[in-house]
Amino acid sequence: MDHPENDEKYIGLTVNSGVAQPPSVNPYLKRHRRKPLPTVGEMVEGIVKGDITMLSRAVTLVESIQPEHYALAQEVIEKCMPHSGDSRRIGITGVPGAGKSTSIDIFGRHVLRDGGKLAVLAIDPSSERTRGSILGDKTRMEKLSQHPGAFIRPSPSAGSLGGVARKTRETIVLCEAAGYNNIFVETVGVGQSETAVHSMVDFFLLIQLAGTGDELQGIKRGIMEMADGIVINKADGDNIGPAQLAQAQFKSALHLFPPAESGWSPEVLTYSGYYELGIAEVWDMIDRYFALVKENGYYERKRMQQARYWMYETIDSRLRSHFYDNPEIAAMLEDRERLVLSNRQSSFTAARDILDYYFSKK
Amino acid sequence: MDHPENDEKYIGLTVNSGVAQPPSVNPYLKRHRRKPLPTVGEMVEGIVKGDITMLSRAVTLVESIQPEHYALAQEVIEKCMPHSGDSRRIGITGVPGAGKSTSIDIFGRHVLRDGGKLAVLAIDPSSERTRGSILGDKTRMEKLSQHPGAFIRPSPSAGSLGGVARKTRETIVLCEAAGYNNIFVETVGVGQSETAVHSMVDFFLLIQLAGTGDELQGIKRGIMEMADGIVINKADGDNIGPAQLAQAQFKSALHLFPPAESGWSPEVLTYSGYYELGIAEVWDMIDRYFALVKENGYYERKRMQQARYWMYETIDSRLRSHFYDNPEIAAMLEDRERLVLSNRQSSFTAARDILDYYFSKK
Repeated sequence: MDHPENDEKYIGLTVNSGVAQPPSVNPYLKRHRRKPLPTVGEMVEGIVKGDITMLSRAVTLVESIQPEHYALAQEVIEKCMPHSGDSRRIGITGVPGAGKSTSIDIFGRHVLRDGGKLAVLAIDPSSERTRGSILGDKTRMEKLSQHPGAFIRPSPSAGSLGGVARKTRETIVLCEAAGYNNIFVETVGVGQSETAVHSMVDFFLLIQLAGTGDELQGIKRGIMEMADGIVINKADGDNIGPAQLAQAQFKSALHLFPPAESGWSPEVLTYSGYYELGIAEVWDMIDRYFALVKENGYYERKRMQQARYWMYETIDSRLRSHFYDNPEIAAMLEDRERLVLSNRQSSFTAARDILDYYFSKK
Repeated sequence: MDHPENDEKYIGLTVNSGVAQPPSVNPYLKRHRRKPLPTVGEMVEGIVKGDITMLSRAVTLVESIQPEHYALAQEVIEKCMPHSGDSRRIGITGVPGAGKSTSIDIFGRHVLRDGGKLAVLAIDPSSERTRGSILGDKTRMEKLSQHPGAFIRPSPSAGSLGGVARKTRETIVLCEAAGYNNIFVETVGVGQSETAVHSMVDFFLLIQLAGTGDELQGIKRGIMEMADGIVINKADGDNIGPAQLAQAQFKSALHLFPPAESGWSPEVLTYSGYYELGIAEVWDMIDRYFALVKENGYYERKRMQQARYWMYETIDSRLRSHFYDNPEIAAMLEDRERLVLSNRQSSFTAARDILDYYFSKK
């Protein structure tokens, strides 16, 4: 089987290059513009059979900014849903430099050691990608990308976090319907995207480095409390001591947090992605987590909470965009914000005035 | 000057008893129903002069559920705004049992030792108040409540957190206009209300107890990361050792968090509210915080961020209530949620269908 990234040139739509660009300047799209799209039935059938070209094509529809593609994608997703759900969804985060790519490369190969399939997705809403590109470079996961069981897909192109996250969550459904029973969702540990990832995965893994204080500045507040496991990378050679010290410190910090609803106590482990040390132990932790939460019902409960969350999140976000994307409202907001910031109007009456106008226009 | 809580029976509206009840069954309201309200001008003039009866009356308007009172309150607030802002707003949280009342009683008297005025407000959106009533009992802050410089006001009565928080924030404006240059906003450390409090104060103080693990279960995840100071109560007698141990543990945990935007490193202190030990040190910390953030501009910047936050928060919350309070929408939501939870519809198409209906009715 060809690696999916190599298939892009054969399909009607192209994989996103990772840099936002209008579809009209996309050379692949131009060249193949007249190639007919498969029907919904053909796509669903292909996906459920595990046809990687059909999967790629459906994912590209999900990512498309054209409304007719979006509508088509929704039909495909709807029909794939009964075939999805049976998987381990694992979120992986860490600051640039923590060694996420190398770690995913080796974690992924470890997961696939006894068979099965793995999809590696990403959420990176930053348009400029100055902070370490996610999956932008095909060579980043060199060995994993050559594995026949792996499907690696870059982050949907730049856009709002909500939009990017929605696309990734929809892609999970498609991948699971295609038989991918392991899903990694990668994100950089510096923005708001962790919350979005956290709300679509079963297990949240935080990759850290040895050292305290300055080294941790990149990790956003609150992320540590989301983690089901913290793994300290680069525990090799002279760095073993510092890594173990960091392990002890993180353990003692986690001890101060209240117990998680899952009944699971987050663990802290050390490993070396580069030298491939301690990988089995990390995966053993994840196995134990899934055994626990499948047993105590949390796995199912959390998935249902997440489905509900995304329904309400989608509603809230469209209610907001309908308001904020209105040019008249935007002008009023600018005006009122100035009054509020100079203490000339209260936040509440400013809001009330704009809302009154908005609802009067309905 | 009489204590304000004793004045309630003389004014046209009553202070909230802390338990939600429709205004019609409120005995004070009934008895004085025909007493005319002062004009906006009279109220503003009284407040700015520091007239505590007028202040109480305006706060009661803010808390009223009657639309005409609300409209009047907004006018008063608007006119008080130029007189407000010059204060220290301090949020105080901690689980029930941490000794918040005793601590506020002594902290408050310490603040007032050299003059000035202090308003103690609260946010407690729980309607049942089973988790330790906030300011429900007038005897809770016995000494402070007899201090002529103190204005103690129970939490606005039960309602949505957003509504309760808005009322408290508006009350801050009124109190500041009346010359209260110290504002405490108390909340229980078990719910969502800390985020609301955090978004209206300058300094966020978390009261903890000695001991790790089980004792901390009541504190919600994420609260520790909001704290500008953690103070460990009941550091007296045999408990001094455990309190110091807890201090060391919290210090080491805070060390793992990234630095706050304020430039301030949160500190951990021990004290005894009951024996009044270590109080000056806690207040010295808070003094140093204000010195730092007034110097580096963060004080002003954060206040502006908060004003902006409340404007957008109010807008978002009314956009949501306009949608969710619609009975037709509520019925559709119930229906679609069932489909989503049984994996028969995707979260996104369920949301889309309901939104399409909502916007088509506009």
